[in-house]
Amino acid sequence: MKIVVTGAAGFIATNLLPRLFKGGHEVHGIDNFFLGKREFIARSTSNSQFHFHEFDLLDRERVVGLFQQIKPDLVWHLAANSDISFGTKYTDFDLKGGTLVTYNILEAMRIAGTKELIFSSSGAIYGEPRVMPTPENYGPILPISLYAASKVACETLITAFASNYGIRSWIYRFGNIAGPFPTHGVIHDFVLKLLRDPTRLEILGDGRQSKPYVHVEDCLDGMMFGHQRAKENVNYFNLAVAGSTSVNEIADWTIAAMGLDNVRIDYTGGSRGWPGDVPQVRLDTHRMEALGWHPQMSSAEAVRRAIRETVEQLRPR
Amino acid sequence: MKIVVTGAAGFIATNLLPRLFKGGHEVHGIDNFFLGKREFIARSTSNSQFHFHEFDLLDRERVVGLFQQIKPDLVWHLAANSDISFGTKYTDFDLKGGTLVTYNILEAMRIAGTKELIFSSSGAIYGEPRVMPTPENYGPILPISLYAASKVACETLITAFASNYGIRSWIYRFGNIAGPFPTHGVIHDFVLKLLRDPTRLEILGDGRQSKPYVHVEDCLDGMMFGHQRAKENVNYFNLAVAGSTSVNEIADWTIAAMGLDNVRIDYTGGSRGWPGDVPQVRLDTHRMEALGWHPQMSSAEAVRRAIRETVEQLRPR
Repeated sequence: MKIVVTGAAGFIATNLLPRLFKGGHEVHGIDNFFLGKREFIARSTSNSQFHFHEFDLLDRERVVGLFQQIKPDLVWHLAANSDISFGTKYTDFDLKGGTLVTYNILEAMRIAGTKELIFSSSGAIYGEPRVMPTPENYGPILPISLYAASKVACETLITAFASNYGIRSWIYRFGNIAGPFPTHGVIHDFVLKLLRDPTRLEILGDGRQSKPYVHVEDCLDGMMFGHQRAKENVNYFNLAVAGSTSVNEIADWTIAAMGLDNVRIDYTGGSRGWPGDVPQVRLDTHRMEALGWHPQMSSAEAVRRAIRETVEQLRPR
Repeated sequence: MKIVVTGAAGFIATNLLPRLFKGGHEVHGIDNFFLGKREFIARSTSNSQFHFHEFDLLDRERVVGLFQQIKPDLVWHLAANSDISFGTKYTDFDLKGGTLVTYNILEAMRIAGTKELIFSSSGAIYGEPRVMPTPENYGPILPISLYAASKVACETLITAFASNYGIRSWIYRFGNIAGPFPTHGVIHDFVLKLLRDPTRLEILGDGRQSKPYVHVEDCLDGMMFGHQRAKENVNYFNLAVAGSTSVNEIADWTIAAMGLDNVRIDYTGGSRGWPGDVPQVRLDTHRMEALGWHPQMSSAEAVRRAIRETVEQLRPR
């Protein structure tokens, strides 16, 4: 199969690529290294199944041209602004990097005749829902961050293209994903902060934000499972675990995993970590379960393993 | 109050402007005459309360500059591609004319400190819902047209800006709106077709598409009522009537209103009028009723009156 992976130098793709190589696929990765890392993509470039294309997905002509040349069978569209707080500083950041990029991908798929799309959406689309755990058919959809607004815009572009042009899609609304090769996120931030200053740790908000964490290996298992088993034109699933982990727990476990002690914790205060943060997230996981998929790791197990992996990778040798 | 009206030369704005003048407001209209009509705006330009600005809302600098100069208190954002079928021919049409334009308006409001937005959304956002009449909290939101996808994108941009920048919004998900000064829509199309050829009428689809029609006077009453009474940061309502009218009924009534007889009806066939058309629409109207608002006209009354008004306006003198 010919597969395009966007955001190929990012967190999830870096964990995905070895699986696609193992499957024998011809893989084309695209990244502009705005958030992705050159040292991550360097792990794949020597593989003869892999073709790397460095450009900005906002360049529609380039995307369309590449797709016409490759004629991919499947796209893993993972490129996105993954730093929600960034989108509140630059109000068109998610519009461009999320909505417009996703339109470009869909348009390139339409023109090239590519029929399958796997898309990383987010549980953030539910905003601050009145129902928790939140099921996939929750409404009204009133997101509070520009990041989440863009994810909704992408989902609806996908459903409209699916309906008009026969593109099949698998939309996964992620909980927090954790694991090796992070580019961002609370675990990544805590480890970096503690490496810089092992005596204190600043926590955004009050530390009581609590969300379901999925290990990236579980996440990829789930995405591949859904792609094989779910047969609608538009398939949409929460991809999460039943429980949750608080920021304070993550702080404690990170401090312990780094062998530190007497770390002073400073809270920036308020219930949100940043404008647009949803402090309490619980995602209903019954739809993926009904499909036959269950994560191997609980939220706490995923976080503890990801902390070990992140400390291992970020600690200076 | 200083009010900006986008899509000022369009169907709904042309009916709205006299009400805003009567209210004593300073009104700034914006239109690029892509869908709006010069003869409609000509009805308002002699009014000293009215200031007309001709430009494309995609020109963000122009929008931001105008808003900084005016410092409006309220925006009626009515500009949109109202021709759903157009969006399937040019896949970026709604993305530009809907999503990007709405972003520009919100960004201009943020910079100018404008705090109130009235937005015309659509019942099309519900796609082909499993629940009819469809309530506002219906999920999942899986639209089937690029027009509806863009309306969802606009709604979520609005909710994110509301949350981050203290903009209050009133989002109305319209049924079909009918009345004088139409620029598009089934009544407008039927009258024009029958004026050109009184012996036959082509109907898109099988004619059994059936939707709730709201008269534009009721529509404006409802929008103003909601703006006065609904006090959340994000207020969202279906704006419709309980019943519905079929395309075949509209055809019969238009033929009768024009005094025609023995008109041959040709169906293009299929349940949809065009790709992305939702053949059966019923919108739950209880939320507007709970607020205290009820339309004066039923769907049939709205259609019959709009047919009379449209025939009157389009018939050559």
